Amino acid sequence: MPVYTCITVQGALSPETKADLAAEMTRVHSMINHVPGTYVNVVFHELPDDDVYTDGRPAQPLLINGWVRTGHPEAQSSQLVAEIAAAATRVTGIPARRVLVVIQNSPAHFAIEGGRVLPAPGEEEAWFRAQKEVD
Amino acid sequence: MPVYTCITVQGALSPETKADLAAEMTRVHSMINHVPGTYVNVVFHELPDDDVYTDGRPAQPLLINGWVRTGHPEAQSSQLVAEIAAAATRVTGIPARRVLVVIQNSPAHFAIEGGRVLPAPGEEEAWFRAQKEVD
Amino acid sequence: MPVYTCITVQGALSPETKADLAAEMTRVHSMINHVPGTYVNVVFHELPDDDVYTDGRPAQPLLINGWVRTGHPEAQSSQLVAEIAAAATRVTGIPARRVLVVIQNSPAHFAIEGGRVLPAPGEEEAWFRAQKEVD
Repeated sequence: MPVYTCITVQGALSPETKADLAAEMTRVHSMINHVPGTYVNVVFHELPDDDVYTDGRPAQPLLINGWVRTGHPEAQSSQLVAEIAAAATRVTGIPARRVLVVIQNSPAHFAIEGGRVLPAPGEEEAWFRAQKEVD
Repeated sequence: MPVYTCITVQGALSPETKADLAAEMTRVHSMINHVPGTYVNVVFHELPDDDVYTDGRPAQPLLINGWVRTGHPEAQSSQLVAEIAAAATRVTGIPARRVLVVIQNSPAHFAIEGGRVLPAPGEEEAWFRAQKEVD
Repeated sequence: MPVYTCITVQGALSPETKADLAAEMTRVHSMINHVPGTYVNVVFHELPDDDVYTDGRPAQPLLINGWVRTGHPEAQSSQLVAEIAAAATRVTGIPARRVLVVIQNSPAHFAIEGGRVLPAPGEEEAWFRAQKEVD
């Protein structure tokens, strides 16, 4: 269901670090938003040095954008963004001042996975059960 | 007006399949949201194998994110996401369980194309007419 | 705080033009949304020719997507999108008809930078002051 997109400059993260970060973000998201890891996607865009700017100068931020379904409780959303940001620094060693995490959302019924409209937050169980019956 | 962003691993889609998918998504969007194809953008990010993860492991999903203007009727939005997802599997052969389509939106007046603020849904005709007079 | 993502085909913008556009978008954003340039991120995705389509055909648009915090006054948001679009054409020479600028947003408390939840629009000053005390 969610998609996390991570932007860095090339070479900022080793292949191992990317795999570790993907695994940790998946664990965190799965735990907080009650979604099995099999539905959590993480992608990395590694861009050339002269394609990433902060303050109009070449820079090396780690920019993470997550898409989730609208309607999770506020406290849950706050916990999610906090723990994703903490994981990013913990796993990569990139200092927090260069890490930006943004969560965006749209209604579950504006998204389709496995050929089915996503369930609203709180209605996941029946959705997952039906999926298993198909598999 | 819309921008569809498709993320896959490198080699998952042939050049012909990408062109076909762009054409089909354009046709579907144009038909459902009443926007001429000349305003429909589709881009592909083909990422290295170790930059795409599902469940914390390298994976090969097709992740499609579409941006549209806020305010289309609900039924129209539901039809749009369903037909984009169906087109993705039909054209690429990637099974539905690996295809995620997410539609995001923001108000038309938060977007500019051809130097002009976009029209709200339902107000396209006058906008297109004015554009033609400029061209 | 904001992230501007610019998509073009490879070679459409020289390194100098990208740096100039990043600097100008930073200046414009900083001035209108009252955020120091040190918090403005601009990234470029330069894609192969056959990965960018308009109307189902290979094309050369400049697609700019900006993420900002929800809650700026409407007039300010309108000015922002207008001036970013104007800057894009002015700096790159790409005609306005091929430039699309879209601004998306989510609540400030869905984003974290420097380890801290972002301030809502209008509450930046105390946030920046606290950051300086940390640095």
